[in-house]
Amino acid sequence: MMGNKRAFLIVGNRAVTGKLNLNDLPGSAGRMDIMCRCIASALFLSHDVRRDVEVYLLLLGPPDPPKAVRVVGGKVRYMAPDERNIGGILSKALTVKVDKGWKQSTPGVYVARKSLEELLDELIKKYEVYYLREDGKDIRDVGFGENSLFILGDHIGVREDMEIVIEERCREIISIPTRKLQADHCIVIVHYELDRKQREGV
Amino acid sequence: MMGNKRAFLIVGNRAVTGKLNLNDLPGSAGRMDIMCRCIASALFLSHDVRRDVEVYLLLLGPPDPPKAVRVVGGKVRYMAPDERNIGGILSKALTVKVDKGWKQSTPGVYVARKSLEELLDELIKKYEVYYLREDGKDIRDVGFGENSLFILGDHIGVREDMEIVIEERCREIISIPTRKLQADHCIVIVHYELDRKQREGV
Repeated sequence: MMGNKRAFLIVGNRAVTGKLNLNDLPGSAGRMDIMCRCIASALFLSHDVRRDVEVYLLLLGPPDPPKAVRVVGGKVRYMAPDERNIGGILSKALTVKVDKGWKQSTPGVYVARKSLEELLDELIKKYEVYYLREDGKDIRDVGFGENSLFILGDHIGVREDMEIVIEERCREIISIPTRKLQADHCIVIVHYELDRKQREGV
Repeated sequence: MMGNKRAFLIVGNRAVTGKLNLNDLPGSAGRMDIMCRCIASALFLSHDVRRDVEVYLLLLGPPDPPKAVRVVGGKVRYMAPDERNIGGILSKALTVKVDKGWKQSTPGVYVARKSLEELLDELIKKYEVYYLREDGKDIRDVGFGENSLFILGDHIGVREDMEIVIEERCREIISIPTRKLQADHCIVIVHYELDRKQREGV
């Protein structure tokens, strides 16, 4: 059975790695608004949370990069889908003193010092990795395994040196071939396509 | 050719009809965060705006209901996809003195005093109306006409007396049959399904 566990990794090229100004998530927080919406798209259903989903953020902005944040759908508490609420939860995580291992900041939210390579080497033990890029194979034509991780860039995309790290570890480059969409909207569609496949038993 | 023009109408059962507290869109503004995300889902592509899309909000919360807001993708300026930015634009619209006719508050954003019935009687002249509800026909099996309006409720849904007004005017009740999704995520999927159909020429 496919699609039992899903995870998303979003690269925040300029997303800050310290306390956030919740009144200015797009500006001084380095488009942290995108990260917040990606978390909401990945985790929230109507009046419910997708308990089998994890979200990973790789944050590369000042003052203290890189940091990775992990949000576990089955364990998260007190999270609402609005950007400011999620921003507050991320801000708490980003004021924790980090080291290589995951530390919990609030229920279901963890933070660590990890490069993309370190993070992916951890995740490929649990997930088959798919990278979303415009020139990839149409998601509708892809057969997914049991547990899938989807990697997306923010408004800037993914740096070339990081793409090499991803391509060495990913099973397939896939695309949503209709229009160029925002990362948070791509996540909604990935869920939808996998929900469809799961429903139809393909 | 189908899907040339699209519009969305979202019913905000408690969304306030006066100045908004941008620091508390979910609480004191009556889940105005949902309205903001619906606008973003309807209008934004990656680094672009869907110019052929209109969004209508029907706001029913205190202090001065009902108010309708219209956002025209082809005319809107200075809008970013984050909730706080869109909330600021809505707050400006909601401090305009309203009457029955549309008044522009900022470029591409208009506000008026309209009931659901008045608003829909105006919109059915331009659009074929589809109502999104769980028991509807699978969106993938629906053939759409040239210009389509999609009606969605917020976290509360749509009141029974308003459903009657809608059912009298809608061509079909349609659904996204996979999971119970938030309104803003439904809008992403409606666009996606119509983009697919357009691309495949069906």
